[in-house]
Amino acid sequence: MEGSLKCSANYVPLTPITFLDRAALIYPDSVSVIHGDVKYTWKDTRQRCVRLASALSQLGISRRDVVAVLAPNVPAMYELHFGVAMAGAVLCTLNIRHDSLMVAVLLKHSEAKTLFVDYQFLHIAQGALEIISKTNCKLPQLVLIPDHNQQVPSYSNTNSTSANLDYDGLLEMGKLDFEIRRPEDEWEPISLNYTSGTTSSPKGVIYSHRGAYLNSLATILLNEMTSMPVYLWCVPMFHCNGWCLTWAIAAQGGTNVCLRNVSTSGIFCNIAEHKVTHMGGAPTVLNMIINAPASDLRHLPGKVVVMTGAAPPPPHVLFKMEEMGFRVVHSYGLTETYGPGTICTWKPEWDSLPRHEQAKIKARQGLNHIGIEEIDVKDPVTMKSMPSDAKSIGEVMFRGNTIMNGYLKNLKATEDAFSGGWFRSGDLAVRHPDGYIELKDRSKDIIISGGENISSIEVESVLYSHPAVLEAAVVARPDDYWGEIPCAFVKLKDGYRASVAEIIKHCRDNLPHYMAPRTVVFQDLPKTSTGKTQKYLLREKAKALGSISKNKSKL
Amino acid sequence: MEGSLKCSANYVPLTPITFLDRAALIYPDSVSVIHGDVKYTWKDTRQRCVRLASALSQLGISRRDVVAVLAPNVPAMYELHFGVAMAGAVLCTLNIRHDSLMVAVLLKHSEAKTLFVDYQFLHIAQGALEIISKTNCKLPQLVLIPDHNQQVPSYSNTNSTSANLDYDGLLEMGKLDFEIRRPEDEWEPISLNYTSGTTSSPKGVIYSHRGAYLNSLATILLNEMTSMPVYLWCVPMFHCNGWCLTWAIAAQGGTNVCLRNVSTSGIFCNIAEHKVTHMGGAPTVLNMIINAPASDLRHLPGKVVVMTGAAPPPPHVLFKMEEMGFRVVHSYGLTETYGPGTICTWKPEWDSLPRHEQAKIKARQGLNHIGIEEIDVKDPVTMKSMPSDAKSIGEVMFRGNTIMNGYLKNLKATEDAFSGGWFRSGDLAVRHPDGYIELKDRSKDIIISGGENISSIEVESVLYSHPAVLEAAVVARPDDYWGEIPCAFVKLKDGYRASVAEIIKHCRDNLPHYMAPRTVVFQDLPKTSTGKTQKYLLREKAKALGSISKNKSKL
Repeated sequence: MEGSLKCSANYVPLTPITFLDRAALIYPDSVSVIHGDVKYTWKDTRQRCVRLASALSQLGISRRDVVAVLAPNVPAMYELHFGVAMAGAVLCTLNIRHDSLMVAVLLKHSEAKTLFVDYQFLHIAQGALEIISKTNCKLPQLVLIPDHNQQVPSYSNTNSTSANLDYDGLLEMGKLDFEIRRPEDEWEPISLNYTSGTTSSPKGVIYSHRGAYLNSLATILLNEMTSMPVYLWCVPMFHCNGWCLTWAIAAQGGTNVCLRNVSTSGIFCNIAEHKVTHMGGAPTVLNMIINAPASDLRHLPGKVVVMTGAAPPPPHVLFKMEEMGFRVVHSYGLTETYGPGTICTWKPEWDSLPRHEQAKIKARQGLNHIGIEEIDVKDPVTMKSMPSDAKSIGEVMFRGNTIMNGYLKNLKATEDAFSGGWFRSGDLAVRHPDGYIELKDRSKDIIISGGENISSIEVESVLYSHPAVLEAAVVARPDDYWGEIPCAFVKLKDGYRASVAEIIKHCRDNLPHYMAPRTVVFQDLPKTSTGKTQKYLLREKAKALGSISKNKSKL
Repeated sequence: MEGSLKCSANYVPLTPITFLDRAALIYPDSVSVIHGDVKYTWKDTRQRCVRLASALSQLGISRRDVVAVLAPNVPAMYELHFGVAMAGAVLCTLNIRHDSLMVAVLLKHSEAKTLFVDYQFLHIAQGALEIISKTNCKLPQLVLIPDHNQQVPSYSNTNSTSANLDYDGLLEMGKLDFEIRRPEDEWEPISLNYTSGTTSSPKGVIYSHRGAYLNSLATILLNEMTSMPVYLWCVPMFHCNGWCLTWAIAAQGGTNVCLRNVSTSGIFCNIAEHKVTHMGGAPTVLNMIINAPASDLRHLPGKVVVMTGAAPPPPHVLFKMEEMGFRVVHSYGLTETYGPGTICTWKPEWDSLPRHEQAKIKARQGLNHIGIEEIDVKDPVTMKSMPSDAKSIGEVMFRGNTIMNGYLKNLKATEDAFSGGWFRSGDLAVRHPDGYIELKDRSKDIIISGGENISSIEVESVLYSHPAVLEAAVVARPDDYWGEIPCAFVKLKDGYRASVAEIIKHCRDNLPHYMAPRTVVFQDLPKTSTGKTQKYLLREKAKALGSISKNKSKL
């Protein structure tokens, strides 16, 4: 319109950096980060992040360079989320469960110029650098993050061209008058998140400043966070940048309570001591909490909102959590959606329903949060929406500003993921008459038995309702007659016993016959660092079982 | 970064339209709008807005056309905030206190093609069309918004080329399968807000979809709104689109309680009946509430958050409001900042301060909310930041995405407002050592007496603390010796009495001598529709008083 003028007064690229600027201005003396005895204020945190950005630029880090980190939820990890962005660079958070080989692969793929590593994972990093040094690739500069209570451990930096560096020394190098390199375009990358190992080939998911800003705001709203929340870090910050709450907590001037290791005593102590208002965790964390030994339990100082995702929380887990004083918020998303993409918004009219009905409703994935434009359950071929009949299974697809820019150096994969103008999640779901979606499976996790689709999630949910079952996973086992049959892997609770026949009977009592597993294996479940069961490993095992039984029947 | 791909899957222009889409999806059966006996759900509201957009397109409204409205806070006014945007058009909300001449001026300036008018203001609109018909300008099409309990009053449409139209008839014309015209670029205009009459020449402030989206989210956060708030509409929707809460309430799936006229009985009845959680209002509204007759008072069903702005709430108003169960949130902004631009964020450490200290702190304007990148108090010539000493007065300047696109057809004014890369508010303030800003005056409202700056706001605050004073305004009165001296206009409470000498003594007891008014005039204060005192009228009167006394001294 005539009279308009786009300029620095009225157009500023969106970036989470402003959250930190604002927190330091409005909440300078409030506690930003707590880790054991270490305590920072928002003024401290901003200053430390500016120093970090300045030091990185002194190390030669330029705009769009990648800076990697291998660390648990410690203060340095939090600071890197802002400091690297303030240097104009891209933060690549590596999973601390990776081995040296995988770390080497990801460092090479991302071309990271610097690698920050927590002292606990130094051997992994050194192993990775050793692997890289045998190739033609340039080695990243290593920066050690020491324990705050420890002396800096001595280590040999394989990169002979530069002196040994540690995190605190680096911060000392940094200047407070460093001119922050804000994005020139909000579409510029802020972070790189490799997809976790539920699939075999990790892909580098690119997040933008715009998406990170918008998903942070969406996350605040879906967590029902008002100002100055106290957030307990059980979700790894290396997982989708802590579901974007790294940035969001700054936006609300909250307090980040760091946890190096997730333990029930650590969770309850921190909740009680710091008056935690919000936390998050995969269902495994919820499982830990409800099975915590009595000696670890502490009285909750107030309602604690717990956001969970990755897998729908089984009903009995929900019941126990709510009984203990937690309020569980169920969200669903993928690395490609910056973590949370949906929210199962609770409605007041459901308050009066029977408990089991409530649990069923809450286990659904719900609908898009405010940062996502649209979510749909579509036929992946025709792109037509599936009917909202709670039965017709289609692929979950997203469209919105909190969907990744793409996969690093893999335009083909990006194009495939976005074909048809939607992001294809690879997850299968139904849509209920009220519009809410309910995940049925990953496309590759669905079990097709005698032409019928069996949702492994549904079978698992029944297994979880057995009093002796701690954890359960169901995968397809090849079968000559049925094509596939469900095979259950079950971990029992300490001190509990159950036979295979008992478990199968429990399933048959609660499921259509064809959906009940024919095979039950008692064992620990293999997990990714974020608590997702590695079903591809179980599927291999089930396949092996299939061939054994086939051989048997030949005998 | 290599592998990125910007497409419809991951980039969607930000627009409040998605708030309505989402509300209709997630909260289809929740109450969206209440007005007396009229009640709509979010599903209804979205359908009505789609029909409205469709009907507008049938009337020939195209992208970027202006659609004007002259209406109080009734459901149609709310629907126009989405329906017009969904037709790709720009909503121009006119102040219902304007006369026909002013409405004619604004219709001509905005080139509005359609004018929606509430039945109560039909005569104003018809008068305006009559004025326009005497010029060469094209007449806008008139659409009458009838009272929901009334028959459509008959009226003659001065635009002879089209039949008489009323709002409900228009909606019936609309088709539900209308393809919503979403913005192609988020910078596109969504609304036009003419500045109110505190200055003599109204300017058309252009809001963008991006700014409206971001300010809505900021407003949710600064009101500490969680999901499904119940909002009572005391702020006129024609004022900065109701401080952007028109859109924000949809974003949170809340309920809009409409009020045609603001009265204390209406306020308390609605709060009690609908369990209002949030409301807003200029200090005049707060004043009304604390002085409400006992017969109007009702027990509050819970804490009600009241956002106030336009002028700092005087301490005794704050005290009484909090005693009554309200929580006052003080914000400050201008039409050019989409309404609220700052928030006086409350800190827990202030809870233990004496009440008067608390009131002083809360009367400050605070700091930028999350949608604004930066706020500063600057020397308007050198653009240097003023020291944070609570004394040095400078001009308040803003930078961020929730600053207007510019002034319609007035690029010169836009350039002036943005010169130096900041939006110059024209308001004078100091910055306190804790960073919070405190408004001292509009640049033109400051009184310079014997070389000393006197903040009219400070003097008014002392006047308000006198038990007999209902309202007060202080302006400069010309003086041969001092240059200017403070002149107070005061309205006393019903049943109270006070003499000029008493009022002056009260000021001298509580202020430095030079700051106390020399003249006190008892009268009603002239107001804009948004409750701002029209100081330019008082200034003229004070000037006249000045010349009288000058004449007198000559005698």
